[in-house]
Amino acid sequence: MDGLDPDTLADPAALTRALVDIESVSGNEDAITAVVEAALRGAPHLSVRRWGNTLVARTELGRPRRVVLAGHLDTVPVAENLPSTVDGDCLYGCGTSDMKSGSALALWLAVGIPAPRYDVSYVFYDCEEVDAARNGLRRLAEVHADWLAADFAILLEPTYGAVEAGCQGTMRARVTTEGRRAHAARSWLGANAIHAAGEVLGRLSDYAARRVEIEGCEYREGLNAVRIAGGVAGNVVPDRCDVEVNFRFAPDRTVPAAEAHLREVFDGFALEVVDSAPGALPGLSSVPAGEFLAVVGRPPAAKLGWTDVARFAELGIPALNYGPGDPNLAHTREERVEIPKIHEGAATLAGWLGGP
Amino acid sequence: MDGLDPDTLADPAALTRALVDIESVSGNEDAITAVVEAALRGAPHLSVRRWGNTLVARTELGRPRRVVLAGHLDTVPVAENLPSTVDGDCLYGCGTSDMKSGSALALWLAVGIPAPRYDVSYVFYDCEEVDAARNGLRRLAEVHADWLAADFAILLEPTYGAVEAGCQGTMRARVTTEGRRAHAARSWLGANAIHAAGEVLGRLSDYAARRVEIEGCEYREGLNAVRIAGGVAGNVVPDRCDVEVNFRFAPDRTVPAAEAHLREVFDGFALEVVDSAPGALPGLSSVPAGEFLAVVGRPPAAKLGWTDVARFAELGIPALNYGPGDPNLAHTREERVEIPKIHEGAATLAGWLGGP
Repeated sequence: MDGLDPDTLADPAALTRALVDIESVSGNEDAITAVVEAALRGAPHLSVRRWGNTLVARTELGRPRRVVLAGHLDTVPVAENLPSTVDGDCLYGCGTSDMKSGSALALWLAVGIPAPRYDVSYVFYDCEEVDAARNGLRRLAEVHADWLAADFAILLEPTYGAVEAGCQGTMRARVTTEGRRAHAARSWLGANAIHAAGEVLGRLSDYAARRVEIEGCEYREGLNAVRIAGGVAGNVVPDRCDVEVNFRFAPDRTVPAAEAHLREVFDGFALEVVDSAPGALPGLSSVPAGEFLAVVGRPPAAKLGWTDVARFAELGIPALNYGPGDPNLAHTREERVEIPKIHEGAATLAGWLGGP
Repeated sequence: MDGLDPDTLADPAALTRALVDIESVSGNEDAITAVVEAALRGAPHLSVRRWGNTLVARTELGRPRRVVLAGHLDTVPVAENLPSTVDGDCLYGCGTSDMKSGSALALWLAVGIPAPRYDVSYVFYDCEEVDAARNGLRRLAEVHADWLAADFAILLEPTYGAVEAGCQGTMRARVTTEGRRAHAARSWLGANAIHAAGEVLGRLSDYAARRVEIEGCEYREGLNAVRIAGGVAGNVVPDRCDVEVNFRFAPDRTVPAAEAHLREVFDGFALEVVDSAPGALPGLSSVPAGEFLAVVGRPPAAKLGWTDVARFAELGIPALNYGPGDPNLAHTREERVEIPKIHEGAATLAGWLGGP
């Protein structure tokens, strides 16, 4: 793989396209990481560290505040959409929206702004699109949390140029009903566990989800059955039914509080938490966040999905999502990014960091 | 395979054991059919016909009434329980209860009673323990219904010496709810099909099943969910949920009436019938049935499971279940038959047919 030439590094749209054309489906980030690392090491104002396929490049200017700009370098599997193509104002290809246009902005700023208003740590990581256990940011936080230390973080996930602050927490839990098997021809000898699950579904239907406003952002909760399974055979009264529920909760609840709430909702039923991830408060009151919002000039909204901003929140770092891609196009065959949106994001971020 | 010697043919318990020791898991009935056919052809008072692995042996005495005694020759898979063993009064082995003790009684009567009170058609068939499409009695009824013509039939399925009359019908149907997919983080944009199934389960829980008395036999209906499935992924509001229900209905309902009833119960939901089989009225008012009940000397009960008596009912032949095996031991590793029950059944049937 050839390195990135200066002209490419100086143009965020060209840089996006160059990164898109280095295929980097999760687990295959060696090549792209090498290219990004070489570009970062070519900038004498950066101190670069690598751990596995994660990179952290820092300015060391002694500024009173430090911010993080972060993006992952992996993509979901290619869907016959590489190499990239350009049609009018749009750049098409796997990863254009999620999130090489965002990561390209971080690299463009890292190389192009030698003396930003704050010290900056630029973070590039792998395996975001797969199991949380493999997530490069999570793993880096476990072994080198100090590399990530900062007062504020921006994750350049696709938001179509909006500021999406914090994120909701998520919890999946299995609610189980039990009964007694019997032959369907003598069903009164059994107890039907699927019938018993009717009450679980009734509580879900009746559930009134909260809408919570935090720092001007509205977080809208949701509690949904995402899977149901029960049954032994076509002639047997079933003795077990499992309802898997997904609870998306506002970041004013902790994970234990969310679990306690679910146990209250499903009081009387067996409940087991399958997995969970905490939410993140918007954290818009920090000075760098306020200055960033002023440059963007649009009110922030709550992030409803779960993103890696929650990992920064767990480290005590307020974080928000801001990127040029359209989140609705992520993971699609028609994935694309609008080139003007890349330039808009570049101007906003450079204006904030006090750059060119 | 050697044939059955006269001593064995003269003793219903020895005959049961001889048939049990000819392994005949469904699809592998050639050997046992050959042995039974040879024994039948050795009786000059019988006219024997074979079609595939089904046998029909008839007396042709010009009696005003004809009855059928029927049994299948196949078994479920052997479970380390062949060859047979005897422990005290019990004969252990695959097929002892279901239903070689019953089929042995038919063969014992066929050979041993040259001049019964009614003309008798003894029917032996294959593939009862597998898909209905392969059932030998069903297939014979399709191509040679005339071979089965009779005024009354006894199916020698295990009833532990009780008379179990007629049988309930059965119908499986799929009740489907639909919704609209959405990301679980923005669940208000979707419509949860699993939640919608709560109403289906509620109707099942509230369902008041009928108990119907017909000719002194109580048929107890039942309507049960036997399977439920829904869900797309752990983070997606599901757009479909399927509830499979099994309806066991008294034989005063036809299959179309049963379907109409289900459509009424699940009014407002999509419903598709998956499969069905009609019930069979007890048919105890026929002269041979009345005479048989008099010999048994115990009141009949309703058969709750579905058996091949319904195939006779479809041919217009009243039929009941009566056999020495314990139905609760059928298909078990510990399958067995009590030898005194075999002799009791032999005496009852021979007393009825006016035999030795």
